[in-house]
Amino acid sequence: MRIETKTAHFTNPLYLESGRILEPYDIRYETYGELNEDKSNAIWVTHALTGSHHAAGLYENENKPGWWDGLIGPNKAINTDKYFVICSNVIGSCFGSTGPMSDDYSNHSPYRYKFPVITIKDMVKAQRILLDSLGIYKLEAIIGGSMGGMQALQAAVDFPNLANKIFAIATTSVTRPWAIAFNKVAQEAILEDPAFKKGYYDPEDIKANGLVGLAVGRMAGHISFLSPDSMDKKFGREYKRNDGLYELFGKFQVESYLEYNSYNFTKWFDPLSYLYITKAINIFDLSRGYDSLEEALANVKSDVHLISFQSDMLFEPKESKEVYDIMQKLHPKEQSHYLNVESSYGHDAFLVEIEKFEHYIKEALDGREEK
Amino acid sequence: MRIETKTAHFTNPLYLESGRILEPYDIRYETYGELNEDKSNAIWVTHALTGSHHAAGLYENENKPGWWDGLIGPNKAINTDKYFVICSNVIGSCFGSTGPMSDDYSNHSPYRYKFPVITIKDMVKAQRILLDSLGIYKLEAIIGGSMGGMQALQAAVDFPNLANKIFAIATTSVTRPWAIAFNKVAQEAILEDPAFKKGYYDPEDIKANGLVGLAVGRMAGHISFLSPDSMDKKFGREYKRNDGLYELFGKFQVESYLEYNSYNFTKWFDPLSYLYITKAINIFDLSRGYDSLEEALANVKSDVHLISFQSDMLFEPKESKEVYDIMQKLHPKEQSHYLNVESSYGHDAFLVEIEKFEHYIKEALDGREEK
Repeated sequence: MRIETKTAHFTNPLYLESGRILEPYDIRYETYGELNEDKSNAIWVTHALTGSHHAAGLYENENKPGWWDGLIGPNKAINTDKYFVICSNVIGSCFGSTGPMSDDYSNHSPYRYKFPVITIKDMVKAQRILLDSLGIYKLEAIIGGSMGGMQALQAAVDFPNLANKIFAIATTSVTRPWAIAFNKVAQEAILEDPAFKKGYYDPEDIKANGLVGLAVGRMAGHISFLSPDSMDKKFGREYKRNDGLYELFGKFQVESYLEYNSYNFTKWFDPLSYLYITKAINIFDLSRGYDSLEEALANVKSDVHLISFQSDMLFEPKESKEVYDIMQKLHPKEQSHYLNVESSYGHDAFLVEIEKFEHYIKEALDGREEK
Repeated sequence: MRIETKTAHFTNPLYLESGRILEPYDIRYETYGELNEDKSNAIWVTHALTGSHHAAGLYENENKPGWWDGLIGPNKAINTDKYFVICSNVIGSCFGSTGPMSDDYSNHSPYRYKFPVITIKDMVKAQRILLDSLGIYKLEAIIGGSMGGMQALQAAVDFPNLANKIFAIATTSVTRPWAIAFNKVAQEAILEDPAFKKGYYDPEDIKANGLVGLAVGRMAGHISFLSPDSMDKKFGREYKRNDGLYELFGKFQVESYLEYNSYNFTKWFDPLSYLYITKAINIFDLSRGYDSLEEALANVKSDVHLISFQSDMLFEPKESKEVYDIMQKLHPKEQSHYLNVESSYGHDAFLVEIEKFEHYIKEALDGREEK
């Protein structure tokens, strides 16, 4: 599979939903497979909160492949022998696209809090401009999970002619207070960490040592990605180390899991990006600018595939079902489809239980009868 | 209603489950109503993680009554005209019973980390000794919610002849990783707060200014006490202040709720006590010391009433149901009773939806036909 990683630089201003302007800006992106001659075989994959443009494949010297490698590749559900797959890092993030720690060109120092609030709509708009710059005006599909699913839905509403198919996975049309609350713990933990220096941290220092506040906040995030039952299954009451039960700092396996993943996370994710992207998630509301969700979804021309996971508590099945029900009411029945996957993995299922929905995606993309 | 608040001082060593010893120790307790002549009308109420001995009534100059005031009082479900109610602060806590910030008499300075790990069994044992000291050898009932319910169950197993009736509300027989994970966020946030000074903080300073880490951790706690649906109902997507949507620090109502309650909490709760009590909750396992939960519950002679709440995710209904099912199998059917309350308030329901189970408790205590 041919992988290319590039950065596109845009000098035209990006007009943001807030009324503010971002200029100039970069978008870092990765592509898999080959774009055909009439540029009609492109699939746009959108990433979640802490995802990046690196959705598939294994770089040299890398241990772990891209975050949806199980789904994207030769003969996989998103078949790179057939499709040209493009995934770009959202603006506001920290993997090469312009974000709060990027240089504000007007004064050659990082934006930090001068960076404007970004919305899901803005992310979609920026990526749409990237597609335009590549001469891609029509997509076979837009596919994303969690915040990636928000982008897919937003694109379906904002650019009705862009994609033939939309796959919105483990997502919602509007972020509920449960999700906002978990983000709040993270934001508070980051903001109040003295090493965060009210946003004026040294990025090299923070990368080398990690920010404890970000780790604490990420622990809360990891809880929200799971569920009581998935934790039972994953951890039970096992002790990770040979600590005694009666030692104050003895650790259950679930505690070691949270520690390991959360502190590790601080080495590769920027705390200001975490603030900005969780903000974008918190204020996501597909109906904003419309009188109702119905009115927003009336725009949609793409086929819409909604996939939810039974034990997902961050974005519950009923939230996907609501979008499906409205689509069914407004549009021809065959334009919308809903799959609720039996799973006990909680929200994480869209990343870790690919085997439960890859067939569905393959069939929806390639048709039931493959040669 | 007559309220008395006292401190009992014990010089005999308390032998802890860990093998360690606590001596001497104090237990702060409060009583409501009058103990009858043969001392047969006592009800022991047990408190939750951040609760105290102040379960009911309103002190002078106090705005808020005790934490279960809706349930305890003249003619209330736990009728103080009829019963003598006693509630004591658990050891390890910070409201007058011996805890990690109490003076270690051997060197006249606070225990801090020298304080031994306390278990639910230890809490029960200490309170049992208090009852003994008051000449109360038989209780009409033990009633508690959450960690209070753990104590009630533990007492039923450890002291089968102590109480006629046990009410274990919104609780479990063994703490699951979901609950442990939320406690982990809090513990980590406390431990890593520089102002915590690795446990060597100045208690006056911490009381005056509050510990941010404790606030962050408490936010996670508040999430665990609610549920996605209860948050929808309680907060929706309302904005608390007139912040703009596109301001990075604009606040949804749920965020203001978490901030207000969590920072307020740091003014009245001690961070080391939070570490020790969450530890006690994490390692709670009613079957410890037995081959199985069945074997532990075989001891029980009291009537056991289990009450759960449909939307409680911290201690799910099925966890109460499991205890009930085993009780039904082991003992005469009429010895155990299970009420699952329809509620969308999550774990908080045991404190805020008293109207949904007070009648049940009143009837179980006083009988169906009251004069």
